[in-house]
Amino acid sequence: MKSYLAIDIGGTQLRAAVFPSEGITPLRQKRIPTRGPGTPLERLVGLVRELEREDEQVVSISTGVPGMVDPRSGILFRVPNIPEWDGVALRDELQQRFNVPVFVGNDANLAALGEWLFGAGRGHHNMLYLTISTGVGSGVIIDDRLLLGWKGIGAELGHVSILPGGPMCSCGQRGHIEAIASGRGIANYVAEQLVLGRTSTLSGVPSAREISAAALAGDALAVEAFERAATFLGIMVASYLHIFNPSILVLGGGVSQSRELFMAPFRAALEQHIIAREFIDGLQIVPAALGDDCGLLGALALARDYQAS
Amino acid sequence: MKSYLAIDIGGTQLRAAVFPSEGITPLRQKRIPTRGPGTPLERLVGLVRELEREDEQVVSISTGVPGMVDPRSGILFRVPNIPEWDGVALRDELQQRFNVPVFVGNDANLAALGEWLFGAGRGHHNMLYLTISTGVGSGVIIDDRLLLGWKGIGAELGHVSILPGGPMCSCGQRGHIEAIASGRGIANYVAEQLVLGRTSTLSGVPSAREISAAALAGDALAVEAFERAATFLGIMVASYLHIFNPSILVLGGGVSQSRELFMAPFRAALEQHIIAREFIDGLQIVPAALGDDCGLLGALALARDYQAS
Repeated sequence: MKSYLAIDIGGTQLRAAVFPSEGITPLRQKRIPTRGPGTPLERLVGLVRELEREDEQVVSISTGVPGMVDPRSGILFRVPNIPEWDGVALRDELQQRFNVPVFVGNDANLAALGEWLFGAGRGHHNMLYLTISTGVGSGVIIDDRLLLGWKGIGAELGHVSILPGGPMCSCGQRGHIEAIASGRGIANYVAEQLVLGRTSTLSGVPSAREISAAALAGDALAVEAFERAATFLGIMVASYLHIFNPSILVLGGGVSQSRELFMAPFRAALEQHIIAREFIDGLQIVPAALGDDCGLLGALALARDYQAS
Repeated sequence: MKSYLAIDIGGTQLRAAVFPSEGITPLRQKRIPTRGPGTPLERLVGLVRELEREDEQVVSISTGVPGMVDPRSGILFRVPNIPEWDGVALRDELQQRFNVPVFVGNDANLAALGEWLFGAGRGHHNMLYLTISTGVGSGVIIDDRLLLGWKGIGAELGHVSILPGGPMCSCGQRGHIEAIASGRGIANYVAEQLVLGRTSTLSGVPSAREISAAALAGDALAVEAFERAATFLGIMVASYLHIFNPSILVLGGGVSQSRELFMAPFRAALEQHIIAREFIDGLQIVPAALGDDCGLLGALALARDYQAS
């Protein structure tokens, strides 16, 4: 029996699953903490070995990585949560050990590929995928192909300037949309306003989840923080539409799930900042369909997409 | 003898040229004012008829249009300088009259295609083209294909927000990079500063050309205006690199030709705002090679690219 082995490398968890040659229901799966006894690579290799079966032929191993990676060479440029992997040739490391083709990609790009092949974006040729949680992840399908660029490190839509000199981003630059519209951006804004003496039911350094709860309970600062983030995201997405002219926008991540709080001001800002109706007429805006499994299914999509091409 | 007929529709001039089946030297060409006796379409048709020869077989007619156009249907959505063409099916109009395949594209996209096939971008697979003159035009080659999007109206990189609520753009929105970094943006900034009482050798509402001359003569406001535009463009291009990860940036248009004034602060801002060296290491930044003929050669590139695919 032929199978695909898909891996989702996260900052806190390593997940792996074996998928049959058809369908998206795993035959078996397992997750372990990223950190523990052994190096991250040893832990990853051990996880794969646990999932192997003698009577199965693994066609390929594919893996999403939370960082900058060249999918053509399989070399990791930067992995913020696993810094010992900076510069590691992960594809070759795994290929040598398991003797099957190995595919490596950025996790948000693969999530986009997964939504496109198996999820909310099926049937579209031009898709924009954004996942808004702690940070802002993204992937873009253009004419049925994933946007990668020269070294394969493009589609970093979270790191686009919208407020030069604005709040500090996770990347060290200022004023990127991620620094404003992400959960971290929302939390930083509330913390800053509290320091400035704004009255609120919140205090100290609240999390995005606590701010969401306070906003639903009517706290004015919390509501404003979500509206501000959503408005900036709407302005930014209008620009993305001018750049990519997609037929569908797929939104994943916790922040965009706070639907009433976030989606109403987001849509209003988007409508208001578009340069021509043609960019938005007929555009579908839908939530991501794959949920927590988007990482594994994205890695599976990478394997299936390579098989197809 | 087989030939290609290429057209460059501008707001002030209609240009057309006949090219041989090989090479980029026109057999003959002609230009007329866009406005004059007859409708713009009648004038365009007349121009094409003047270039036709009995002993030649025109393989195709291809034309660049200064506006939003669906290259797949050949329908013009919006042509700001020729508003009577909004909604016109230009491809069908020309195809019916001349009975040959007709290809239509946005002029900046075609200029990018021309630079990629015949000019500064030859041999690259991922190219970003920006032309900075009165406005900001753009075209993007991704994996050897022109970025178009769902309706073919993408790659509008001039209409990306960099300063929400900032200066008014030609499109009616505020704070786009075109509103700041274009010749019009530079001129508006200087005019605004003069109204605020800034001392300068300039007065009234100077043109970008006059500001450039004043800057070269050492006028502090004029120098500042160019540096400001170039710095914002550098911040914006850093974001474009994060999005597209090109191996070459081709810069056309008058503003980017003001090399010392513009290029030094542009490069400094770009270097400073990149999130990782991988985006800029090895990146080529070069001037456009095709000059004033980029429109005609872009239209020729469209015809040749369709032949090839």
